[in-house]
Parts: sequence; structure tokens; C-alpha cells
Amino acid sequence: MPQTPDTNRGLGHGASLWIADYGSPYEAYHYAVSDVLVWKRTEYQTMGVVRSPLFGKALILDGKWQSCTADEFLYHEPLVHPAMILHGAPKRVAILGGGEGATAREVLRWHSVERVVMIDIDGQVVNECRRHLDEMHQGAFDDPRLELIIGDAVDWLKTVDERFDVVISDLSEPVEQGPSFRLFTREYFAETRRVLEPRGIFVLQAGSVSPVDITLHARLIRTLAAVFEHVRPFSSAVPSFAQPWGFALASSLPLDPLPDPDAVDTIVAECINGPLEMLDGEAFIGLFMVPAHIRRAIDREHTVYTLEQPPTTYTGETR
Amino acid sequence: MPQTPDTNRGLGHGASLWIADYGSPYEAYHYAVSDVLVWKRTEYQTMGVVRSPLFGKALILDGKWQSCTADEFLYHEPLVHPAMILHGAPKRVAILGGGEGATAREVLRWHSVERVVMIDIDGQVVNECRRHLDEMHQGAFDDPRLELIIGDAVDWLKTVDERFDVVISDLSEPVEQGPSFRLFTREYFAETRRVLEPRGIFVLQAGSVSPVDITLHARLIRTLAAVFEHVRPFSSAVPSFAQPWGFALASSLPLDPLPDPDAVDTIVAECINGPLEMLDGEAFIGLFMVPAHIRRAIDREHTVYTLEQPPTTYTGETR
Amino acid sequence: MPQTPDTNRGLGHGASLWIADYGSPYEAYHYAVSDVLVWKRTEYQTMGVVRSPLFGKALILDGKWQSCTADEFLYHEPLVHPAMILHGAPKRVAILGGGEGATAREVLRWHSVERVVMIDIDGQVVNECRRHLDEMHQGAFDDPRLELIIGDAVDWLKTVDERFDVVISDLSEPVEQGPSFRLFTREYFAETRRVLEPRGIFVLQAGSVSPVDITLHARLIRTLAAVFEHVRPFSSAVPSFAQPWGFALASSLPLDPLPDPDAVDTIVAECINGPLEMLDGEAFIGLFMVPAHIRRAIDREHTVYTLEQPPTTYTGETR
Amino acid sequence: MPQTPDTNRGLGHGASLWIADYGSPYEAYHYAVSDVLVWKRTEYQTMGVVRSPLFGKALILDGKWQSCTADEFLYHEPLVHPAMILHGAPKRVAILGGGEGATAREVLRWHSVERVVMIDIDGQVVNECRRHLDEMHQGAFDDPRLELIIGDAVDWLKTVDERFDVVISDLSEPVEQGPSFRLFTREYFAETRRVLEPRGIFVLQAGSVSPVDITLHARLIRTLAAVFEHVRPFSSAVPSFAQPWGFALASSLPLDPLPDPDAVDTIVAECINGPLEMLDGEAFIGLFMVPAHIRRAIDREHTVYTLEQPPTTYTGETR
Repeated sequence: MPQTPDTNRGLGHGASLWIADYGSPYEAYHYAVSDVLVWKRTEYQTMGVVRSPLFGKALILDGKWQSCTADEFLYHEPLVHPAMILHGAPKRVAILGGGEGATAREVLRWHSVERVVMIDIDGQVVNECRRHLDEMHQGAFDDPRLELIIGDAVDWLKTVDERFDVVISDLSEPVEQGPSFRLFTREYFAETRRVLEPRGIFVLQAGSVSPVDITLHARLIRTLAAVFEHVRPFSSAVPSFAQPWGFALASSLPLDPLPDPDAVDTIVAECINGPLEMLDGEAFIGLFMVPAHIRRAIDREHTVYTLEQPPTTYTGETR
Repeated sequence: MPQTPDTNRGLGHGASLWIADYGSPYEAYHYAVSDVLVWKRTEYQTMGVVRSPLFGKALILDGKWQSCTADEFLYHEPLVHPAMILHGAPKRVAILGGGEGATAREVLRWHSVERVVMIDIDGQVVNECRRHLDEMHQGAFDDPRLELIIGDAVDWLKTVDERFDVVISDLSEPVEQGPSFRLFTREYFAETRRVLEPRGIFVLQAGSVSPVDITLHARLIRTLAAVFEHVRPFSSAVPSFAQPWGFALASSLPLDPLPDPDAVDTIVAECINGPLEMLDGEAFIGLFMVPAHIRRAIDREHTVYTLEQPPTTYTGETR
Repeated sequence: MPQTPDTNRGLGHGASLWIADYGSPYEAYHYAVSDVLVWKRTEYQTMGVVRSPLFGKALILDGKWQSCTADEFLYHEPLVHPAMILHGAPKRVAILGGGEGATAREVLRWHSVERVVMIDIDGQVVNECRRHLDEMHQGAFDDPRLELIIGDAVDWLKTVDERFDVVISDLSEPVEQGPSFRLFTREYFAETRRVLEPRGIFVLQAGSVSPVDITLHARLIRTLAAVFEHVRPFSSAVPSFAQPWGFALASSLPLDPLPDPDAVDTIVAECINGPLEMLDGEAFIGLFMVPAHIRRAIDREHTVYTLEQPPTTYTGETR
Repeated sequence: MPQTPDTNRGLGHGASLWIADYGSPYEAYHYAVSDVLVWKRTEYQTMGVVRSPLFGKALILDGKWQSCTADEFLYHEPLVHPAMILHGAPKRVAILGGGEGATAREVLRWHSVERVVMIDIDGQVVNECRRHLDEMHQGAFDDPRLELIIGDAVDWLKTVDERFDVVISDLSEPVEQGPSFRLFTREYFAETRRVLEPRGIFVLQAGSVSPVDITLHARLIRTLAAVFEHVRPFSSAVPSFAQPWGFALASSLPLDPLPDPDAVDTIVAECINGPLEMLDGEAFIGLFMVPAHIRRAIDREHTVYTLEQPPTTYTGETR
């Protein structure tokens, strides 16, 4: 086991295991890995929990970065709280996906919440996150209000009788070969609408809003608008995603006007357990102030994703 | 000149020249380069203008990504227009740095602007940008209102007698070894204040606002606050920087309340030549709605950069 | 043009332009680039001449490393001299490819050589190498014994009437889509044989001999053996190729026994102008002492490349 | 846990965990990792056993590639057998380092071997290799002829009374900060000589022989020559090291002339259990035919490593 003199001692490159995340064949974000807590093949994917010197612990699925302890709040707080705040007093919440448990964690902060159903397809991912990512779930899996269903959200959506105040789509990979692409189509947005209470709100992570990669986001907004009377896109900058990330709210009832910052601050103080990291009244307004180029990209888009024409890999339509 | 069978044809990896931008020893953003328009050593640095399949043409200084045609508007519009809008009718504007000419381009859109002084230390960079990056400058260097000074902004600031409505700091590298670190200290912020009209506004690019790299930003805000009565931080997500970017306005006069979106839309329509890409009334509000964790990071910070204790490399204090 | 504090000053990563050479999707060799001397699109390919802090000046074609001044002698001396030495007194030599001029340089060292014909398809590559890689060609292009033909070696081989003592195949990319894949088939090896003098020797670069990537090499040896009575594989370790490289001699006449080291030293001293870098009698013997696993890989292989079944990209047959 | 459409399915980049091995700040070899079998911090270092799609299972120490199942025979057969063959009938063999067990495996193939002492400092590395790298050790650790000592070879060498026919130095990192740099000095080569039988042979892995990185090798040869009357350098191309690797034999008795190929073949057939991968009579000769530039580099070198002036990192003397 020979070795040339180690040129890197003290330079930080001693940690020479890296995650290389190819956003496209033309760009890759490389994150150094200092420790591998778990790396295994599950029934559905390869999963890893690794430690990054910069970003803390991170979940990796099929070799792609999912979220990390250093900045996951910039994803999970916007994913959860705006929908909950606009609803006002959500009691029953469904989470599609969300394996890390961080989405459930934010939902369970709400005093009004009585029941959370989380449906994730990969029980091994959930178990390993539960074991290795307590900073993410913070005990959410032990909360008696949470029912965890290991199963396919596609099947669950079609058969469930219950109705929810908020449904949160926290899924990865809306691609043809992926397990979840159907959940990004008009047909399944209609199924989601079916399981919402009349005043219910649907929120989903909705892809990058980078100007070089915005087609998926724009089409998801168009697809939502084919099903719901009211849709609001918004976005949050998540550094470890290396690009600003889009979300969308959808409902049968109007989603405007937005409450003013003071009203949001009051709701946060009274309805939510513990302080939030990024979200307060001011930040809430900021999330919804969509830059003009994003609104124009959505306006110009007319494609609606259907089961016949679902999202595909970017080498096809989405670029 | 042998070669193994080309495994990459059609996979996008044919372009195997890459810019590797190490934000730290623990993360690197890699951009594929399909063409090198210019690569040369100037008196001050190594400069390149390259083409990226994803991000268009980009300027590289000392091997580090500066800006690119695909998303530079997400940097240059926030850098220029909020200060101009808050002023209302700027006539004289100074730009420290700004070699690509894109900052000057945005300034010169304003009908009220009568004179722009741009001071950049590296005439070769300016010349090559002028030659290869017309998408960036769009003829700004030929506008008779622009005076281009090739020189050190440090010297210029200390000796100039003129007064300006807006001063824009578009400088790179506030590090000890860099040419510009002094321009990020209390002493030079005071010099900048000296060259402002009484109602004048100073704006500067102010570093990353990523939660893992926010110290520089927080200290710059603190340093501005040691010199100016009123300071407002704001931020914009620039995908090719791989992280949200911070800015700051500073003035002797109050910078609030912000105009409402309709008022901003009116100003943009009446005072600015041609449509903007990202900025309108809604986006303007969004820029200033700072997430709570950034405000807290600034509140917690007490260090002020001075000539004796200037910004240094991140391996020292800034992390 | 903002920038975070430069973390890399003095760490060697200041040179953050890199060549990333993907030998396969599973391995890549990254070379830092400190200067780009030329980067342009020719009629046939994208070419670059870059400077590497470690490997000197290098030629890059279609984004792939070809050769560099620091170790090209480990490729070009084995490519040229063994065939010439075994011939003894070569007068007329043909070079297929060889754009850098380094193969011609080695051939022209031979006092016996009266005429060299070099056929390269890309005149712009040859011109830029002539201009920027004088360390490689060392004036070979100005030697009156050299005739440079810019054209397709496929056509030249089919039409030329002349006969040669040595023919050297210094071509890249024996892949279906590449310009040269036909020159690696039985049919064109037969054409090559046609242009050889009866005692003539054909030598070609013949791919990697790494155990994980040896199929191309083994099939080329088998294909040569389908045309020539006598074939000898050999190899040389070229560090900038990141793997040991294979070659082959082929002839109608026996290629053994090898001359002993002293005889080679005498030939080198008497027949060749100037000292060689790596080759003398001892090294000559070493080139031909093929490790057992390579001989076994050749023995096990039975595929012969033809125009109907030429070499293809590795994702197909060659792995 | 959002994700952009997976651009890499089927492209081979699905495996986006990589080992990045920086030979220097100017070059890095990146290996894709498809599985992490173990990754842990031991008392001495961080160790990993990973699977590479191209190179099989590999041992990683402190983030640096050590050896892999696909080509370790190109390192371990040259490390072990030439010394054993030149000795003729080794009975007692000592191995300094050699955690994977592959060096012991090759030694134990010899029918004449009665006793092997292997001294490795890191028991956890040995245990994990034993558990996860059976392709490497192939049961060597269970051979009753092997005594495994977990300890510092420096201490062992100074105190051991036994004498050995062959001593094999299979150590990593001859650098000032590393645990083993002392074992690459004149003083410890003298200790090694002390534990050799009069006809005994010492062999060590002796660094890269790439022309851009040959100083360490040349100095090790010079240091051996300061202690032993007879020294023979040799080399083998190991693709996963991305460069040809040097070794050296040292003895009080002459190491030449080399046996001829047929004699080696006879020894291999009669004295060694089972077929070898790369080594037979022909390959044996090839190992010792050192290219001229390597011999010149050794001739030009005069530095001898001592405890006062040991090998240091390459940023200092060794380049």
C-alpha cells in the first residue's frame, strides 16, 4: 500500500472523498465528505448519510444530494409553514415523501396539528434517517400524532378516504424512470385535490428556478393551474442545492392577499412551537415576491404534465 | 497522440475543460468550458473569457468565476437599481471596479444620469471584456456619459473632489493580499461617504449570505454601520455563484420606508431605458425582505473591518 | 464581479482551470491548467494548447489530453525507434497522424532517413502545434526531408504508389464516430501492408494495456495478426496518460530475436542524432518484455476489427 | 428532499461518490465509488473500503487510494517475488506494513516459506481488510505460518533478534508527519540490514518513477546504496496509481546477473503455489530493464535520507 508524500495535509483536501452532484453534464457541485455514517443499497435506491465539513450531515439518495443539517431549514421551513400559515389552523396534514423527517418535524411544531400521515416508499431510508439524522427529525418519528406509512404515495392517494387541511409533496425526481414522476402530473394533482378539505392547501417542492433550468418549475406551475383555481409560486435560496429552489401553493380558495408581516409574526408566535430559523413576517413576504423573469417564464409556458406526457429527463424536454 | 475510445461523445462530457471554483477546501463548483475566447496574464491577474454550455460567456479572474451572461442580471440589476430608485433622480454615479461593463450598462439606462465615472485597476481586463463580452457591456463603454479611469480606486477615492449621487462598489476579493481589501474597511467607507452628495447612496456587493459563510457579510454590514447612519442589507440568488449573494445600501439619510411595488413599477417605466430582466416592483420588495437568520447573524456580529484589522482569508476569521 | 475571500492563494489551487479526462464514466484524471496558449475550433475538432504546472505544455483535442512536453518522450521514443532499430537503416518513413510533430522529430533523428511523409487531417492543428509547441516538434516541420500532407490518411493509403521502410500510425480515437476508426481495421492494415517495402515494418499506438481496459489493445493485436505474418506487442508507462500504453510492430518478416542491449546501444549511438531520453539497449529490452496478463488477454481474444465491425465506443464491445 | 431531473441515469454518473486523489495540487485522479463497505476512523487514520465500478474493491487510508482488487497484482507480485526468486529458497520473511494482507498472500505462496512476521501499526485496518477484502488476503491471515504483530515497525526493527531471508517494506507515506517516514532513512535501512540473514534481501516500494515526480525514488535508491553494497531499482506500471511505480532490492550480496527467463519460469513453476497474474520469466526481465531517464535521475541524485533529513512533503524538497 504505497503512497506518494501527502501533499494535502492541513490544506483541507485530506478529506478526499467527495460527492459530485451533476446538475447537468455541464456543471457539478462537489462536496467534500469527512465521514460516511451509512451507505447501503435499499430496495429502491442507494442511500448514504455522510458528514460534510462545511454542510454538516447530509442525506444522499442514488448518489445525489438531498438535504443537509447546515441549511435544510431554508428548504423545510418554506415547504411547510407558508401553507400552514395561509390555512391558519391545520389539524390534519399529509406528507408525500419526506424521508428525513424534517418536514414532519416542522408540521408537528403546530399546536393545531392533531394528525400527520407521512407516506414514504422506502422504509430503509426512513429507518437510517431516524438512526443517523436526529438533527433533522428531532424526534418527529416518536410523536404520537404521526402515522408513518411505508408505501407508494401513488397508491395511497388513489385509495385514501381521509381529508386533509394541508398536503405536502416532498418528493424527489419527477422523471420518467423515477418512482415519483406520476405524482407531478395533472392526474395526480387531481387526486391530491380530492384528498384536500375544501379550504385545504397543497404545497410542493417544484424544482429549480435558476434561469438556466426553469422549465420544470414553469410546467409544474402550469400543471397545478390546470387543476386548482389558485396557485402561488414562491422560492427560497438553498446554498447546498447551489441554486434557488421553487415551491408552489395550490388551493380551491384564493391564496391572496398575503397576510402582512406583523400578522405572520403573530401567527408564528402563537401557533408554532419554538423559534424558526429563517421564517418570520418579513421573510414570509420575501418568499412570495417572485422576480420578474420567473413570472415571465411561467407566463410563457403552456405545457401541462400528464400521465401521457410526464416530466422526463432534462436531456429531453426540460431544457 | 493516442486516445482511448471516446466514452463521452454525446454525453455532454465532450467539453472536458472545466473551471473548478473552490468556495472553500470543502466544496467546489465545476463549470464545463466549451470555448476559451481569451486567457492571458495581465499586470494584476490572470484573466479569461470562456464559454460555458450552460451559463453562456463568463469572465474568470485568477481562476475564479466572476459573472456570466446567463444570470449576471441577477447580480447587476440588484447592485445598481435599488440605490438608484431610492435616490430617485441620480445624475452623477461612480463605479469602483466593474470591469465587465455590466454595472455601467445598468447605470446608463437611467435617463437622469449625466455622468458616470468608472475606476478599474486593470485596463487589460476592461479591454478584453470590451472586445469579448459585448453581451455584458452592450456598448456602455462607448456612451459619452461614461468616463473610464484605469487606476486604483483607493487613490481615486482619496483625491477626487467631485461629489456623486450614487457610488457603487463592484469589487472582488476583500482579502488581505488582494488589491481591494482596503476598500472594505471603515476608513475607506468614510472616504466613500466623503465623495457622496448629502442625499447620496452607497451600494456594495457584500459577500455570500449562505448560512455556512455569512461572517464576511455580517461584518461588512457592521462596518458600514460604523460610518453611515442608515444601512440596509439585501440579497439576490445568483445560480452561477452557487449561493445567495448579499448587498448593502448605506446613506446619511433614511432608507425607509421602501416605496411600494406600484411606485417602483412607475419609476422603472419612466426613468429607465428598456425592460429589466428580474427587477420590478414585486421583485424590489423581495430583495429587501431579509430572512430572519441573516438578520440574526448581523445582530450577533460586532467586528468592524479597519485598515488595522481588514478582511482576511476565510481560513482565518471569516469562518 | 464579486468574489468570496480567495481561499486558495498559496495552496496551489489558484490555477483553477482544469482538464478533466474521463477514461470512462468511472474515472477521470484532472490536470490543472495555468495558461491557455490557444483554444479554437478547427474544421475537425476543438483543439487547445495549454500549460500545466506539472506536465508542461500539452495538446488537447476535443477536450482530451494528447501529449505533453514533460513525458511525451515516453510515448514518442517507443513509437518510433523500435521499428526503426529493427529495420536497421530506414530511408523512407510514413507517419499517419502525428500532428504535434514529435513523431516526425524522432524519425528525423535517423541519419539514414531520406524522406518522411506525414499525413494529418487537420492543418490547423498542425499549424498551431508548429507555432506553440516548438518543444515538441523542435523544428521538424522545417526539415527538407519532411513532406507534410494535410489530408485523410484513409484516402492517401488507398492511392499512394510509394513504398516505405517504416509506417507509423500515430492516430487518435479508433471509434466509430471518429475520423480514424477505419485505420484500425483489417482492411486498412492490409492497405498499410501494401505501402510497405518487403522488409518494411508497421508500428502503431495500440491503446491502453491496463487490466481494466485491455480489450481494444488485444483486438488490435489480433487484427494485425490477421494481416501480417509477424506481430509484436509492447508497452510503455506514460504518466500523463494515467495508464501504461500499448504499441505493436507488424511485418512480413520475423521480428525476433531482438537485438541484445549492446547492439541496440551501438545502433542508437551510430544511427541517431543526439541523445534519447528513455531509450537505450536496456530500456529497449524492457519495452518488449510483456507482462504475462497482457499476453494472456491477447491469447484469449479472437475478435478482428473490420470495416463491418470496427472499434466502437467502450460502452459497447470494448469493455 | 428535492431533486432536479436525474440527468445521469444510464450515463454511469449515477455513482456520484468519488475518491479524489491529489498526487499534487496540480493533478487529481478521480475514481467513482459505487459502494462504501466500511468507513471509519481508527486510532491512526481514517480508513475506507469502497467498491469502484472499474477497479473493484479498494482500500483508502486518510482519503488516499492504497490498492484495489483489479490491479493490485501489478504492485504485490513485483513487490514480493523478485526478492524471493533472487534469494531462491526463502524460509523466514518479514513484512513491514502490508495491512491488506496481499503481500503476505504472495509470500505464503512459496513452498519454502516456514515463517512470516508481519508488523502493521493499525490493527483496525488489518481487521477491516480481513473482513472486507478477502479477494486481497485470500485467507493469508489464517495461515499458521503467519505471525501478525500489531505495532510500530520502528520499534520492532530495533529490538527483534530474529534474522530473515527477505524483508519487505510495504509502507505508506514516507513524510515527516507520517508514522513511517523514519523507515525510509539510512538509519533504519541499517536496522533492516541488521535483521537480514547474510544472504538476505531487502525490498521496498520506493515511490513514483514518473519523470515529474522522481526525486523521492532517486533519493531512496541513494539512501539504500549508503547502507547496502548492492541495490537494484525496478518498476511496474500500476494503472490505479496513475503512474509507474518504483521498487528496489538491496543486499550485501550481488543482485546480478539476473536469472534468464527460463530459469525464472522454472522457479515459479516449482517453488510457488498457483499461477501468478503478471509475473513469469519474460515479465521478470522487463521489471528490471529500467528506462534510461530513470537511471540518469538516480545517477544525478546525491541526497541520502537520514533521521535528521528525512523525506518531507513534496512542496519542499522532493520536487
